[in-house]
Amino acid sequence: MPYRAPVSDITFCLDHVVGFERVQSAPLFEEATTDVVQAILTEAGRICEEALAPLNRVGDTQPARLENGVVRTSPGFAQGYKAIAEAGFVAISADPAYGGMGLPLTVTTAVNEMMGSACLSLELNPLMTQGQIETLEHHASDAIKDLYLPKLTTGEWCGTMNLTEPQAGSDVGALITKAEPNSDGTYAISGQKIYISWGDHDMAENIVHLVLARLPDAPKGTKGISLFLVPKKIPDAEGNPGVANTLSVVSLEHKLGLHGSPTCVMQYDGAQGWLIGEENKGMAAMFTMMNNARLGVAVQGLSVAEGAYQHALAFALERKQGRSPVDGGTGTIVDHADVRRMLMEMKAEIFASRAMALDLAVTLDLAKAGDTQAAARAAFLTPIAKAYGTEVGIKVANTGIQIHGGMGVIEETGAAQFARDVRVSAIYEGTNGIQAMDLVGRKLMDGGAAAFALLDEVEATGNEVLTPMAQALRKTTEDMLALDMNERFGGAVPYLMAFARVLGAVYHVKAAASGDKARHSLARFHVTRLLPEAHAMMAQARCGAGGLYDLSPDDLAA
Amino acid sequence: MPYRAPVSDITFCLDHVVGFERVQSAPLFEEATTDVVQAILTEAGRICEEALAPLNRVGDTQPARLENGVVRTSPGFAQGYKAIAEAGFVAISADPAYGGMGLPLTVTTAVNEMMGSACLSLELNPLMTQGQIETLEHHASDAIKDLYLPKLTTGEWCGTMNLTEPQAGSDVGALITKAEPNSDGTYAISGQKIYISWGDHDMAENIVHLVLARLPDAPKGTKGISLFLVPKKIPDAEGNPGVANTLSVVSLEHKLGLHGSPTCVMQYDGAQGWLIGEENKGMAAMFTMMNNARLGVAVQGLSVAEGAYQHALAFALERKQGRSPVDGGTGTIVDHADVRRMLMEMKAEIFASRAMALDLAVTLDLAKAGDTQAAARAAFLTPIAKAYGTEVGIKVANTGIQIHGGMGVIEETGAAQFARDVRVSAIYEGTNGIQAMDLVGRKLMDGGAAAFALLDEVEATGNEVLTPMAQALRKTTEDMLALDMNERFGGAVPYLMAFARVLGAVYHVKAAASGDKARHSLARFHVTRLLPEAHAMMAQARCGAGGLYDLSPDDLAA
Repeated sequence: MPYRAPVSDITFCLDHVVGFERVQSAPLFEEATTDVVQAILTEAGRICEEALAPLNRVGDTQPARLENGVVRTSPGFAQGYKAIAEAGFVAISADPAYGGMGLPLTVTTAVNEMMGSACLSLELNPLMTQGQIETLEHHASDAIKDLYLPKLTTGEWCGTMNLTEPQAGSDVGALITKAEPNSDGTYAISGQKIYISWGDHDMAENIVHLVLARLPDAPKGTKGISLFLVPKKIPDAEGNPGVANTLSVVSLEHKLGLHGSPTCVMQYDGAQGWLIGEENKGMAAMFTMMNNARLGVAVQGLSVAEGAYQHALAFALERKQGRSPVDGGTGTIVDHADVRRMLMEMKAEIFASRAMALDLAVTLDLAKAGDTQAAARAAFLTPIAKAYGTEVGIKVANTGIQIHGGMGVIEETGAAQFARDVRVSAIYEGTNGIQAMDLVGRKLMDGGAAAFALLDEVEATGNEVLTPMAQALRKTTEDMLALDMNERFGGAVPYLMAFARVLGAVYHVKAAASGDKARHSLARFHVTRLLPEAHAMMAQARCGAGGLYDLSPDDLAA
Repeated sequence: MPYRAPVSDITFCLDHVVGFERVQSAPLFEEATTDVVQAILTEAGRICEEALAPLNRVGDTQPARLENGVVRTSPGFAQGYKAIAEAGFVAISADPAYGGMGLPLTVTTAVNEMMGSACLSLELNPLMTQGQIETLEHHASDAIKDLYLPKLTTGEWCGTMNLTEPQAGSDVGALITKAEPNSDGTYAISGQKIYISWGDHDMAENIVHLVLARLPDAPKGTKGISLFLVPKKIPDAEGNPGVANTLSVVSLEHKLGLHGSPTCVMQYDGAQGWLIGEENKGMAAMFTMMNNARLGVAVQGLSVAEGAYQHALAFALERKQGRSPVDGGTGTIVDHADVRRMLMEMKAEIFASRAMALDLAVTLDLAKAGDTQAAARAAFLTPIAKAYGTEVGIKVANTGIQIHGGMGVIEETGAAQFARDVRVSAIYEGTNGIQAMDLVGRKLMDGGAAAFALLDEVEATGNEVLTPMAQALRKTTEDMLALDMNERFGGAVPYLMAFARVLGAVYHVKAAASGDKARHSLARFHVTRLLPEAHAMMAQARCGAGGLYDLSPDDLAA
């Protein structure tokens, strides 16, 4: 069951749902003509179908291995990576001054989606490098940029992000990795980092780590964190990978999924590092990296959902069981109403999450092009897109298993791999709980301005179902604003999900307005069957933390 | 993080929620005194904690293997099985005339829950034998009963059920395995069966297969299916395992979870079999086996939910991240509102599914004791309990991963295994979609009498939130009854889930009435946060199949 890149649906979204033409008309993106964008999407679709999709199962069954301190990647991954790098997919949105294409993040987002559907384990590699490129563009010195960016944009070198430590996960401020000044202006980095995706591998000639660490006498918590660039091999003056730095891979994690992506425990033993940005301002730089990655991870959820859906649909269109309950059916289980319901739900969720990811990407592009309101909109959308997109990935992959019946849990079928691979997406780059806390905390610190502006957009559709829903969500937002922070946190996840449901309906309603009959039917499915869930989500959100502390730890364990 | 058997919560459910005393007061179950039941539950809890729980991880990492045609089980499984058999847990509810304890199915259900939490892979073995014992008790000749039941009740021999074939899964009627009469009154069984749990192993001296097959010239479909008993070794006159039958294990499946449970492809090559029940009446016998198994699988979902919850709670009570947002907290992530919300939701779902499973078991016991109304109630509850219980297993295991953060997807942590192990429970013994179709099809064929009787019970609580919810569900049921069958099928799953939500609330309200403060808080959580979901479920149910066929297969693939 081969992967088929959904270039046409992506194009439809760009044209009819998320207003990509606004990005194209900005002077910054004048190169992003429709012809150019279409050429890239088509080429990306072809590479994903032909070069990457065949690697998906290989990565799962023949995971990356640690051999004598070096990570050996799954068979074929190096060639797949080469195809990605040579097509320029690492640097679609990177600065042309350093070898990037300078195209909108929207194009990167669409290409990432297809790469992730084809082979999520491998896609995670360029995703990390993309984030690193953007971070260096924003925060690094010209010397660092000149030395590293040309290597990163071509994909000759790869980037990683090193945040987590055993005692510092969601609480980044608890990290203890040390950075001590050397006499030459560089720093000696010492400590252990965990969960480092693609922390080492044999597909590139150098690997560049961005590492959060703490300077001597730095303030406690997040205010005392600085960001350092720590290359695996220290470049010589000509930019060739030189001597090995004092860092190593201690071990690889044995994970539920993403077996093709080596997740490393990294040890830094006085490794030479270069400060990126200012001392103790590492969190700001990290957020550049994280925000990019949050959209990227939202898309990973979407990617897996699309892959799992195609896989399940192909199965359903072949599998015969029982008599068809409808005239003129296919004779397969697709004729059965409950299977239809599952397929429609998958498709409706996928469309909503794709539209949301592209909406966010367009908004980020508009912000980059100078639209100041867009920045606030993007900031509000980011946690919603990340949590919703990844929940869609988990849900759709799970439904995909169900459609396969007994074959769904047989590993050779491939349905289960989607569910295993996507699971971590709801956890990394900030758990979905952290996303929701960001939404009701930081993202409502504007007094709800960004939230209300989005709800104005919903009401502007003039849709008779959406308008009352927007009003209810407005009221819920006002209720949230009146609560103490920890009360908000108790209702944060359902609040986020209610917003996602309503925004999803907006995207569907816009798609239906195109006049396409099938899109209208899908929109109707979403509005009549899925949107009503928002009421229960809002009811939950309004509960806040009420009652959550009524049970003592002993009661919880009873 | 060791498993702790929830004997006290089970006892509470029996005493305060599901009216177990009605079973105890039936003459058939006069042996089931509170002392006897408590002794069994306590002993089962001890065995599960001490002998079975340590096997759970072993089964996952060292799966059963096929060696020279014989299945070798995971290390320690044989001893674990011996502990189960010697304690009599295979035959708690079996007929004392053949070595059973003759105790209510309710007791079996409670013990199965604990065995499944401790080691689901291993629990599946006695669960299969329990179903076989019940089937033979109902449908086998005295000669067969005399020969087989004493061996099965002691656990010396194990039982399996052989239904599925590659082309016949949900559509059992499509099976083609042949049964040809031998001259001695036995039959020669030939064909291939797949997904046979514990189809072979080295823990018992004989394995007894119940096999659905088709006699020569049998009617097509389910009306031409007969049930046969096919032993691995043909017993001699003294009941000792004799010569090997002509059947073999072709291969073991490589599954997402339940690695400790060998899932076999079985080949029957003219194997000698004995007819159970009448010719072409195999479906009736099969339903005895299936209905038992459906409650059993509902409990598997509950089992895993309980195991995953205990595992996640223990982690949350140890893991420190960030500052506690509450005074007098534990200093761990349990203090965080969103973690609390997840733990409360897990606990509320677990309680509801435990109560539902025990309610169903009690109802089946009452039916067995002669209560004619109870049979209809049990028939209606069975698909709800199966689908809801297993969805709870999947949901709670998934939430358990989330609470672990990054560690949730690291296999050594154990959180992911719960999710992998439980996934198949929503598929086997009839997918949850099939359960829902059974509910709105067969189980509403009484004109809704059983459904309305249950809703009468809900209204009888007099609860101000439950009563309008019951009325809404009554109206939804009436709407369903007015629909054509395939329209009902389109809304079947959400209809089933709405019923589960409402029944869950009833159990919680009853528990709260006990006066226990923590139970009252948990009930409030369920009623205020989870119950409102039933509205959206009913809205979906009322959609029926509307719009589900609007998209052509090409549209679905677009």
